[in-house]
Amino acid sequence: MPYFPASFETLIDRFASLPGIGRKSAQRLAFHVLSLPEGEAEAFAESILEARRRVHTCPVCQNLTDTDLCSVCADPRRDRSVLCVVAEARDVASLERSREYSGVYHVLHGVLSPMNHIGPDDIRIAELVARVADEDSGVREVIMATNPDTEGDTTALYIARLLKPFGVKVTRLAYGIPVGSNLEFTDDATLMRALDGRREM
Amino acid sequence: MPYFPASFETLIDRFASLPGIGRKSAQRLAFHVLSLPEGEAEAFAESILEARRRVHTCPVCQNLTDTDLCSVCADPRRDRSVLCVVAEARDVASLERSREYSGVYHVLHGVLSPMNHIGPDDIRIAELVARVADEDSGVREVIMATNPDTEGDTTALYIARLLKPFGVKVTRLAYGIPVGSNLEFTDDATLMRALDGRREM
Repeated sequence: MPYFPASFETLIDRFASLPGIGRKSAQRLAFHVLSLPEGEAEAFAESILEARRRVHTCPVCQNLTDTDLCSVCADPRRDRSVLCVVAEARDVASLERSREYSGVYHVLHGVLSPMNHIGPDDIRIAELVARVADEDSGVREVIMATNPDTEGDTTALYIARLLKPFGVKVTRLAYGIPVGSNLEFTDDATLMRALDGRREM
Repeated sequence: MPYFPASFETLIDRFASLPGIGRKSAQRLAFHVLSLPEGEAEAFAESILEARRRVHTCPVCQNLTDTDLCSVCADPRRDRSVLCVVAEARDVASLERSREYSGVYHVLHGVLSPMNHIGPDDIRIAELVARVADEDSGVREVIMATNPDTEGDTTALYIARLLKPFGVKVTRLAYGIPVGSNLEFTDDATLMRALDGRREM
């Protein structure tokens, strides 16, 4: 016998199906939704439908957008000769937040992962190659900004080899000791990266 | 400048407004909703609206229900002479889970809290008094099961005094050392409760 009304159990189940939300949290969230002022819960439901209806990928860079082109591709001030390749749309947000980068992006929507049966055709690599191959695009440098783990490294290497024939410069983000950290608390893998990537002073 | 499409930012904001969900988690949840299979996101939105439309309080015990009477009040096998008073609907679920209690409930939907300006008229005390006062209801014992904290204790005491004139027995749940714990790791307040509540062997 369920301890809550059926429609309430359904709502708990829905919340519990979200990543990182356990049964107890789901129950708390469901109670919260019931206690919301009139109209607020409807607005929540509507925001889900609205995001699903409007958000699509940018035809140029595959980033998420709810306009024809994404805000980066639509911005005439961005430098189209530099193209930064990231695994996920959230990585674009991270890089934009740093306000350091003025080029454009390409979002792969995943990384190569033989373990999970994700091959080159499952992520947006063909679109990237087409973009670099197109002489009108004027791409001179491609920065590989996938994460510094096995899958991110493999993906970067695979794409770098694919792009070589087109005569563009392919670079990789620098990985090393994070600013504010110190040697004592840096793990071995990061230290190795920091040594590999050492630069002349 | 927002880093995500407007309708996506709105969805993140909605998730972030839920209790215990930070900005980062909200972003992860919003990405998850976008990646759901067709129909799943719509079902999520619908479950919110459906729960809001259908769930209401039971006219007898104030518990949440989506039928006329709640499942406890509608069950002819429950003992109507024993009435357990809890602060929230989720407490009914906790007690039902123990499968130990066969009486009925009364849900207050809050506790007295002068700090938060919550007085007797803001929670369902009048409904409880009316129920006990009604001779047809046959209530003989009222078990106060509010939490063992200042507000829960105050609420229990306040209600106990209100119900005294009606000649019903008013009891309080036993609070003490939890099963499986031991003296060493029991906090002072709980130990004091355990001492106060000691029983003859």
